Amino acid sequence: MAEDMVLIAGSANPELAEEISKKLDIALHPLEVKQFSDGEKYVRIGKSVRGTRVFVIQPTSPPTNDTLMELLLIIDALKRSSAKEINVVVPYFGYSRQDRKTLPREPISARVVANMIEMAGAHRVITFDLHADQIQGFFDIPVDNLETTLLFADFLLDKKKKDVVVVAPDVGGAKRARRLARELGAPIAIIDKRRMGHAEAEAINIIGEVEGKFAILIDDMIDTAGTISSAAEALKKAGAKEACIIATHALFSGDAIEKLDQDFISMVGVTNSVAIAKEKRFKKLEIISIAEILAGSIKKIYEGTSMGEFFEALQEKIEKKK
Amino acid sequence: MAEDMVLIAGSANPELAEEISKKLDIALHPLEVKQFSDGEKYVRIGKSVRGTRVFVIQPTSPPTNDTLMELLLIIDALKRSSAKEINVVVPYFGYSRQDRKTLPREPISARVVANMIEMAGAHRVITFDLHADQIQGFFDIPVDNLETTLLFADFLLDKKKKDVVVVAPDVGGAKRARRLARELGAPIAIIDKRRMGHAEAEAINIIGEVEGKFAILIDDMIDTAGTISSAAEALKKAGAKEACIIATHALFSGDAIEKLDQDFISMVGVTNSVAIAKEKRFKKLEIISIAEILAGSIKKIYEGTSMGEFFEALQEKIEKKK
Amino acid sequence: MAEDMVLIAGSANPELAEEISKKLDIALHPLEVKQFSDGEKYVRIGKSVRGTRVFVIQPTSPPTNDTLMELLLIIDALKRSSAKEINVVVPYFGYSRQDRKTLPREPISARVVANMIEMAGAHRVITFDLHADQIQGFFDIPVDNLETTLLFADFLLDKKKKDVVVVAPDVGGAKRARRLARELGAPIAIIDKRRMGHAEAEAINIIGEVEGKFAILIDDMIDTAGTISSAAEALKKAGAKEACIIATHALFSGDAIEKLDQDFISMVGVTNSVAIAKEKRFKKLEIISIAEILAGSIKKIYEGTSMGEFFEALQEKIEKKK
Amino acid sequence: MAEDMVLIAGSANPELAEEISKKLDIALHPLEVKQFSDGEKYVRIGKSVRGTRVFVIQPTSPPTNDTLMELLLIIDALKRSSAKEINVVVPYFGYSRQDRKTLPREPISARVVANMIEMAGAHRVITFDLHADQIQGFFDIPVDNLETTLLFADFLLDKKKKDVVVVAPDVGGAKRARRLARELGAPIAIIDKRRMGHAEAEAINIIGEVEGKFAILIDDMIDTAGTISSAAEALKKAGAKEACIIATHALFSGDAIEKLDQDFISMVGVTNSVAIAKEKRFKKLEIISIAEILAGSIKKIYEGTSMGEFFEALQEKIEKKK
Amino acid sequence: MAEDMVLIAGSANPELAEEISKKLDIALHPLEVKQFSDGEKYVRIGKSVRGTRVFVIQPTSPPTNDTLMELLLIIDALKRSSAKEINVVVPYFGYSRQDRKTLPREPISARVVANMIEMAGAHRVITFDLHADQIQGFFDIPVDNLETTLLFADFLLDKKKKDVVVVAPDVGGAKRARRLARELGAPIAIIDKRRMGHAEAEAINIIGEVEGKFAILIDDMIDTAGTISSAAEALKKAGAKEACIIATHALFSGDAIEKLDQDFISMVGVTNSVAIAKEKRFKKLEIISIAEILAGSIKKIYEGTSMGEFFEALQEKIEKKK
Amino acid sequence: MAEDMVLIAGSANPELAEEISKKLDIALHPLEVKQFSDGEKYVRIGKSVRGTRVFVIQPTSPPTNDTLMELLLIIDALKRSSAKEINVVVPYFGYSRQDRKTLPREPISARVVANMIEMAGAHRVITFDLHADQIQGFFDIPVDNLETTLLFADFLLDKKKKDVVVVAPDVGGAKRARRLARELGAPIAIIDKRRMGHAEAEAINIIGEVEGKFAILIDDMIDTAGTISSAAEALKKAGAKEACIIATHALFSGDAIEKLDQDFISMVGVTNSVAIAKEKRFKKLEIISIAEILAGSIKKIYEGTSMGEFFEALQEKIEKKK
Repeated sequence: MAEDMVLIAGSANPELAEEISKKLDIALHPLEVKQFSDGEKYVRIGKSVRGTRVFVIQPTSPPTNDTLMELLLIIDALKRSSAKEINVVVPYFGYSRQDRKTLPREPISARVVANMIEMAGAHRVITFDLHADQIQGFFDIPVDNLETTLLFADFLLDKKKKDVVVVAPDVGGAKRARRLARELGAPIAIIDKRRMGHAEAEAINIIGEVEGKFAILIDDMIDTAGTISSAAEALKKAGAKEACIIATHALFSGDAIEKLDQDFISMVGVTNSVAIAKEKRFKKLEIISIAEILAGSIKKIYEGTSMGEFFEALQEKIEKKK
Repeated sequence: MAEDMVLIAGSANPELAEEISKKLDIALHPLEVKQFSDGEKYVRIGKSVRGTRVFVIQPTSPPTNDTLMELLLIIDALKRSSAKEINVVVPYFGYSRQDRKTLPREPISARVVANMIEMAGAHRVITFDLHADQIQGFFDIPVDNLETTLLFADFLLDKKKKDVVVVAPDVGGAKRARRLARELGAPIAIIDKRRMGHAEAEAINIIGEVEGKFAILIDDMIDTAGTISSAAEALKKAGAKEACIIATHALFSGDAIEKLDQDFISMVGVTNSVAIAKEKRFKKLEIISIAEILAGSIKKIYEGTSMGEFFEALQEKIEKKK
Repeated sequence: MAEDMVLIAGSANPELAEEISKKLDIALHPLEVKQFSDGEKYVRIGKSVRGTRVFVIQPTSPPTNDTLMELLLIIDALKRSSAKEINVVVPYFGYSRQDRKTLPREPISARVVANMIEMAGAHRVITFDLHADQIQGFFDIPVDNLETTLLFADFLLDKKKKDVVVVAPDVGGAKRARRLARELGAPIAIIDKRRMGHAEAEAINIIGEVEGKFAILIDDMIDTAGTISSAAEALKKAGAKEACIIATHALFSGDAIEKLDQDFISMVGVTNSVAIAKEKRFKKLEIISIAEILAGSIKKIYEGTSMGEFFEALQEKIEKKK
Repeated sequence: MAEDMVLIAGSANPELAEEISKKLDIALHPLEVKQFSDGEKYVRIGKSVRGTRVFVIQPTSPPTNDTLMELLLIIDALKRSSAKEINVVVPYFGYSRQDRKTLPREPISARVVANMIEMAGAHRVITFDLHADQIQGFFDIPVDNLETTLLFADFLLDKKKKDVVVVAPDVGGAKRARRLARELGAPIAIIDKRRMGHAEAEAINIIGEVEGKFAILIDDMIDTAGTISSAAEALKKAGAKEACIIATHALFSGDAIEKLDQDFISMVGVTNSVAIAKEKRFKKLEIISIAEILAGSIKKIYEGTSMGEFFEALQEKIEKKK
Repeated sequence: MAEDMVLIAGSANPELAEEISKKLDIALHPLEVKQFSDGEKYVRIGKSVRGTRVFVIQPTSPPTNDTLMELLLIIDALKRSSAKEINVVVPYFGYSRQDRKTLPREPISARVVANMIEMAGAHRVITFDLHADQIQGFFDIPVDNLETTLLFADFLLDKKKKDVVVVAPDVGGAKRARRLARELGAPIAIIDKRRMGHAEAEAINIIGEVEGKFAILIDDMIDTAGTISSAAEALKKAGAKEACIIATHALFSGDAIEKLDQDFISMVGVTNSVAIAKEKRFKKLEIISIAEILAGSIKKIYEGTSMGEFFEALQEKIEKKK
Repeated sequence: MAEDMVLIAGSANPELAEEISKKLDIALHPLEVKQFSDGEKYVRIGKSVRGTRVFVIQPTSPPTNDTLMELLLIIDALKRSSAKEINVVVPYFGYSRQDRKTLPREPISARVVANMIEMAGAHRVITFDLHADQIQGFFDIPVDNLETTLLFADFLLDKKKKDVVVVAPDVGGAKRARRLARELGAPIAIIDKRRMGHAEAEAINIIGEVEGKFAILIDDMIDTAGTISSAAEALKKAGAKEACIIATHALFSGDAIEKLDQDFISMVGVTNSVAIAKEKRFKKLEIISIAEILAGSIKKIYEGTSMGEFFEALQEKIEKKK
């Protein structure tokens, strides 16, 4: 890479940043980050970025308000230090679930966040598996929303499971399940948790065939793991042979680990878009690194070439495995 | 209504505007609309709107580019004529399907349209059953996205059908189907048209039970009717007893009518969000008017009260019917 | 040209784009343009434009609303695909006649269009012979408004006519006539169609001498040809020997051809800023290509040099002919 | 007028402001204006304007940079003091002649000024007889561009002159001359000063009949009076019987008075859009007040009614005089 | 107050909001605030705010990133719910100390925050004793920066101390000290902690007379209390008789209480701009409520009258005490 | 320097621009500047700037409104001529003292000016010793606020004075005095002019020791020299041995020279940020050129390297002198 490229890591996921840095063979640019005792963040770019093209790596993962504020201050510092181009790599995009009004008088928090990032001075966002594709349209700047479908297909095909069914843990996840199912050549099923009438108790209904099958539960993120663990339970009741879980973003808040670490679930696969603390790395957890995809994307963006080839190669690799 | 309220109708759906005007008991404000022989639109507000609160009724229905441009010129004319508040009533929102990048190097056309409307000077958008809820977040101004679920539930309950299943014609429509199903107290099914492997022929797969049932196919819009008619066919093959179609926006382009007017489909219910030409009103078509909801919403907005009551009343009515 | 230059043609005038492409010796970049059966436009850039400097060729000629929308979607797609610079070549600028309020409560449509282009993400506009020079000021981005005066002078001097008078078909065109007249070393006359009193019939009055002369009627565009053909008639009545018409933009809408193809008019010269359908190319029509000027301008802009020399060379050539 | 109306006068034309204040029967709101010894302006609103609708009267007349800056500071002070609505009355709009690029690498100064006024926080501009109508389109806020044609027609009809011809002092003024001529029922002529060839001396050419007539030279403004006085001379040579001059804005800079105060010119009529110093009020000068039109417009804007009636009444009055 | 006024309290300082609500005799509007287990904030306005003028009370006090995000989401929800006017009452403005670059490549965090609040949709900010007055200029919307000087003077005069000197704990606080000193009729002194040469140890230097005096140390905020407690120590060494501390914002982070609760300091007076936890309310602490000033200001803003009278009354009261 | 660098000088300080031009060994780019007889400015860039990186040198010094307007027009011309980057070098920033509201209903003029410069199209501002550091935060674009402290320390150390005290002429200048004092290794004193009670006469009070010392009065600018000359007088009365004055910006308006040219003041040192007319260059005046710092900064910005080294070298030089 030429010398006008700068790679900066916020404090949210230093491990991922290190990995990317190694793959690109570019040292991380010095950055000072502090949190004062009153909770305010302070950042300072360690050396000149005048005229450079900067890539900031900072998922806005929990504590989201802190990591987001830190990101904004980094962008502002870069802008005021005359960086030529500010590319923001946000593998996990906080507040993405608040992407529409589901009830009157709610905010659209994801748009608020998009505005904040854009107005702070970012020129481009690179992100991963947005909760809804439409969030790209919350920005007026280019957004590269990288997908994990192929990455997951590649990972799962290696497991050589048979009689597979891809299961969406709720109706909203049907499209995501379908995308993965297409790559695996598998059917889909959907969990539909609801009350049939307003007076009746909530019932879990499974649409599609799961009996005797190896069920792959897929979601974009695991937060408290409530939805996905009760989905697993429903699958078990419905006679599925075994279940594994695959998800892009591992927030693991509350007692998520406890809920996930149950017998029926044979494996939980997540990416490292969010830093996973040591104490949350339980035995069944498998971490799929996105560092290579990110490094590749950053390279492509820097060189001004298309990212298509990258995914085409991955696609081919998958086809061979099938 | 007080005298500072103005109701203006663009040329896209004068019939709906008339209906609203009657329900509100306010005459439509004079507006001159012309299309020159070279295709340019010309508009002129017929009399003063200084200091008034205006509601412009104009779905951006086909020919979308013309109706959209007309809407923008009306907004600009209102703004430059010192209208105090410009509320844009767009029952059908053109380009809403282009709401994200599905392939690299596509535009996000729905955001382009949102920007155009916002920048022309609109202060609020009232629309109906957006293709994706997230489009609300394409705007920085308030968007009232009215839903047709209750309207449809009310309409369908009157049909007193039994053994009903609500069917989404594709995976993306699962949430919409589920919303209606909840009101009807019915189960859902999903049509999943796809190739299982990349080499195989396309197959239509139905997830969920439909045999011997009365199937209600629901979608947000009917354009060429390709998806929905092949979904109906699939239902027939799968042994459904009968099918009806319900959709908010009736674009009916190409040979849509031909495709819809088949034996297995017993009824097609649509709203008047888009003006439906006489020659497209075939026998099985039932038109559900949204004029009352729109008039009610306009009234609530003008008076500064909540629209919640309106839908609560509708909800109650439905509960009684069940 | 270096490899970071991209030339893209919308669907409005592919022939002109081809000509420019040849003169610059750069192949047109692949672009997919579709119009769905409901009238919505769809565009997709065919291959990567990351980091490139793009020139989009698209006059917003009739059907203006469609060609304009297409242009905006192309700009948005380019912006979201991380093009470095988006130069918009709009040889004919639709809605340019609606550039001011002539009556209360009209829009200023040309400003609406300017806002749309600017906000979609264009960085520079290259256009031709704007209806009013002031439209440049509707933009906050650079506008190169190329003039056809020298091109026309060059073309007309070759005709070696004597006793020439340059005639403006209405009072608003006096300045345009004067600019050409100066280059030709000819006097001017002005057609003034109006009612002398509010009760009297409309009369056509010619200010200046035309008797026995070869009249060159000049206008910026020919739309329905109403004004210009009745101007020709008036010249005939006033004893002019012969008339020819010269205009930059050939919209030729309605029965324009019929009106123009009359005995007294010996020649109609127009540019190819707007694509002219085969059936509208009548015998007396002569088409003056602007491809060379556009190719030259694009080259100058790309290289960051002044466009002045270009026009100075043309000026010199004209001086010699005189 | 209700109590939420505030009338404020900058220091540029206190006399006009006083006149308007009297006609509206509203006292001028206290405003402190200072110019420090280093040339910086200082303003302070004298008492609360919270929630009020303000009309600021300040032509940006010479010294334009000072009066303009003062206007911007007043707007900012009003905005930060929470005025509800800021209407800017700028009877003379400085920099309006720099409304387009006539040579490469010039600014479009009128747009710069428009941006400044809009961005400072003005909500509406009321101005008079803009140099070009298109300047309205430099703003995104409403602009009321009041015309003096009827005022001048009314004034001139009272002079009861016969054999009148309205003369534009240059080609660019043809439209303005025509507008007045239409009201007076008179023909027009145009002065065309230019070189026929590039080597020849400049010649003044008159297009149209003026011999033996009473010539009314009309322009939008008189600055150094160079153009208009040489036009008068040309008319004299061409045998016109007598000439008078009518113009909206009396800048009278340089030795304008000297040039205007010549025998052949029988009268010079101007408005009080710009404050005219005592020493510049020569004998032949007649000042037509625009205070009534402005007061009327302010009233209409405040009340939210149309300004049409106002001009219709004036039109009728003129018709009767003819 | 009329019915279109709405008072909303974020979760940062409910006690202060309650006090204001009582003084204004307006119930707080229902607002749901949640913090999910992953740290994301969720807000929802409890009932309609259409067309109302809202005052949101939310200091962005520690945890600043959380309280700030909550504020932004409330503003967005209000905006999208069509509130007519959004007034943001931020008694303590987080990040106000990061108001300029003191080292290269720092952000200007206070401006980032200002942009966020403005762009979220706030129309006006009411705040207290900003760290620097210039922060008002970070906004383009009106900012009411209320001062505590008179409040403190009133409070301190009641203590009836003699031989008073007002002391700034650092050079940057000289102006603040002077403002209070003027009201008390007392002299000032300034603590200047610094190294005389780059090699020497840090020395605390007192500029002005303090020996034998009652020293009032004043600052805008007490965070970790480091500066102010070492200032107190310096005063003790320099022979001051006694010291009290007065400050507007009581952040009390880290071991602030411990540092403040020392013998030499006889009293610590702070306002309730920030909620002070029970365990931090030590014996010498006196809390001066700003609820009355805030309630008064809100009333004045709502009624559209000047806030001047309010402070004039306070001024008079002080004059009498002296 | 490479060929895409352009250096342009407005008319405010041609001498400084010449000096910078020589140090950078780059000829000044041709620029036409005129002031019409009515006071309007006219500018035109003399030759192409397409694709270049431009540095405009123009302090907005008196007559500020004229120099500021000229600067804005130059920026607009550069923007419309497609300059790639517009860097604005404003060594003296007019209106910087009006940087906050000190009384209700004042504007924040410095923010108005910042908005004007930013919106005209500037990409970066290089300025000197802003009245308040916070003014940087009035911009969203990078601002390099160069300091004169080291320059002054270097200059003063050469004078080899003993028993030095650095004196701030008012409380607001305490920080500036302290910064210089630190470099000189000297103590500070502060002049505090005020009324002790509201009824008493104004008294000048000196905080800190000055008796028998060589006092260096420091300020950011000398306008009418009122404050600083009365401070000098106070120092004399208080027994200071001698006083010199040092200030960055020499406005010298009103009778400043007279006030400064008194016995007790041994020297007045100012920079050439503002052009100083010949007749104002009195004997005791010493002018410290900032051309080298500016040339160095421009070079660093152009090359995309840090400006830190520059000041570090200066710092070292000073350390040696001490």
